[in-house]
Amino acid sequence: MKLGIIGAGSIGLLCAAYLAQCFEVTLYTRTKEQSDKINQSGILLLKGAEQTSVNMVKAKPFSQWDPSDELTIVTVKQYQLPSVIEKINEQSISGNLLFLQNGMGHLRALESLRGKNVFVGTVEHGALKENLHTVRHNGAGVTNIAVFNGDAAVMNSFIDMVPGDFPVLPQKDYYEMLIKKLIVNAVINPLTAILRVKNGALVENAFYLQSVSLLFAEIASILNLDREEDRLEQVIQVCKTTADNRSSMLKDLEAGRLTEVDAILGYLLEEAKIQQKPSPLLASLYYFIKGKEQDGRAQ
Amino acid sequence: MKLGIIGAGSIGLLCAAYLAQCFEVTLYTRTKEQSDKINQSGILLLKGAEQTSVNMVKAKPFSQWDPSDELTIVTVKQYQLPSVIEKINEQSISGNLLFLQNGMGHLRALESLRGKNVFVGTVEHGALKENLHTVRHNGAGVTNIAVFNGDAAVMNSFIDMVPGDFPVLPQKDYYEMLIKKLIVNAVINPLTAILRVKNGALVENAFYLQSVSLLFAEIASILNLDREEDRLEQVIQVCKTTADNRSSMLKDLEAGRLTEVDAILGYLLEEAKIQQKPSPLLASLYYFIKGKEQDGRAQ
Repeated sequence: MKLGIIGAGSIGLLCAAYLAQCFEVTLYTRTKEQSDKINQSGILLLKGAEQTSVNMVKAKPFSQWDPSDELTIVTVKQYQLPSVIEKINEQSISGNLLFLQNGMGHLRALESLRGKNVFVGTVEHGALKENLHTVRHNGAGVTNIAVFNGDAAVMNSFIDMVPGDFPVLPQKDYYEMLIKKLIVNAVINPLTAILRVKNGALVENAFYLQSVSLLFAEIASILNLDREEDRLEQVIQVCKTTADNRSSMLKDLEAGRLTEVDAILGYLLEEAKIQQKPSPLLASLYYFIKGKEQDGRAQ
Repeated sequence: MKLGIIGAGSIGLLCAAYLAQCFEVTLYTRTKEQSDKINQSGILLLKGAEQTSVNMVKAKPFSQWDPSDELTIVTVKQYQLPSVIEKINEQSISGNLLFLQNGMGHLRALESLRGKNVFVGTVEHGALKENLHTVRHNGAGVTNIAVFNGDAAVMNSFIDMVPGDFPVLPQKDYYEMLIKKLIVNAVINPLTAILRVKNGALVENAFYLQSVSLLFAEIASILNLDREEDRLEQVIQVCKTTADNRSSMLKDLEAGRLTEVDAILGYLLEEAKIQQKPSPLLASLYYFIKGKEQDGRAQ
């Protein structure tokens, strides 16, 4: 099966490095500089003390995207998605597309991909892009995928073929799958980013844990969640199992990069508006993060 | 007129240094080490490039407090107040007491001071205690005072006698005076402390300004404020005129000290509870600051 992977950030590089064991992979990069580097040196995959050089991945700038791949995995950040979707929509062919963005803000945009089989997924790996062609696999996890629109056949063939060291699990209900991840992200990311603490601090510090409960309550109201106690407990469990991790939003702010705050909190704030539910805490955290992004760029 | 000043932090040292020009001042310190140092070296008052050594202030540990002073000015932080009030209540004599704490949480405790003339005040000076006997006067401002309970005679005599370079203004309505300061403190202190920015950033960064509005709205609802727009405008003006200042709460957290969060946000949260008004944002900021205090002590 021929795979295209759009986006060569940490998740794109990680997927390409692992999936190249079992698929013919083309990786589409934003810049020609990066595709040249990968074609020349391969992808370097670091895991603990292990180093693997992956030379079977072909890289091309995204401007040369070839829609004939059987499955195209889109790994760009949500805020980079509009231009990718525009280009996909220019192609008249039907295709199989898997979107691995955080949050749920991208779902509306995916509805424009009529006549195509669209899958969505959540990635539970920890990965860090160290340079143009090097990715560090910090935390081994799974990738969950589910049908968003269309037919599951290609998704199921893909799942059957993935290598054992990069498990991909099929999920029945894409909404439930994404909402679970969204809740975890919407609590852990902004709080750790603003408090500048590791995930574990949110449950180890009794005061921070109180703020976790308050934020969760606002999210639960907006999403009309059932089983609130179980879901709060899931968030707490994730804080515990990833206690030593720094969240992506914290790392993004520290590095002066844009965060995924629009994908994560922006979606919830839109929902709150539609449902006319108060969201002072989410809104404030949203403004804190947007303000910090602006401060970061100004420095 | 004989003055006692209880508490030799930045405000206590500042009051002692200026008021000693016109009054016989005894300064009561928490430790004998500090009173010894002040008796030996005087108070050193720094203002810009000027240095003034003030040698007329007598210092004593608070355990030797003498209630015969005509006016006693209490400058300790709100969280140190209970032990001071206990000692005052042990004295059967009537007295004149002026309390200069931030917030409004101390008012309930002041109601226990029956039969005494009690005044309250707000200090608008910027001051920094540099060591046991040195205080830097960063920002010249005024002290406002008003009757909380009893008779104004001693307060008015005091106001008539203060030196011109340390103005003290009488205010008619203690509640209005304190609430104005509380609103400003409750917005500026926690936001600047959590965002780690100077006061001016709250209005210069359009995202932070949005969070100022959200927080103000919650406070206005709890305090049943009239003239909301004018009062929000006052907060914004204070951010502008003190743009280059780091708030006391930010400085306290940076130095790993306790903050005045209980005096400022704790009071508002109690009011919210009494009135059964939602306060998710104030509560979260309260927990953020309490959590940071705990992190600071743990380091």
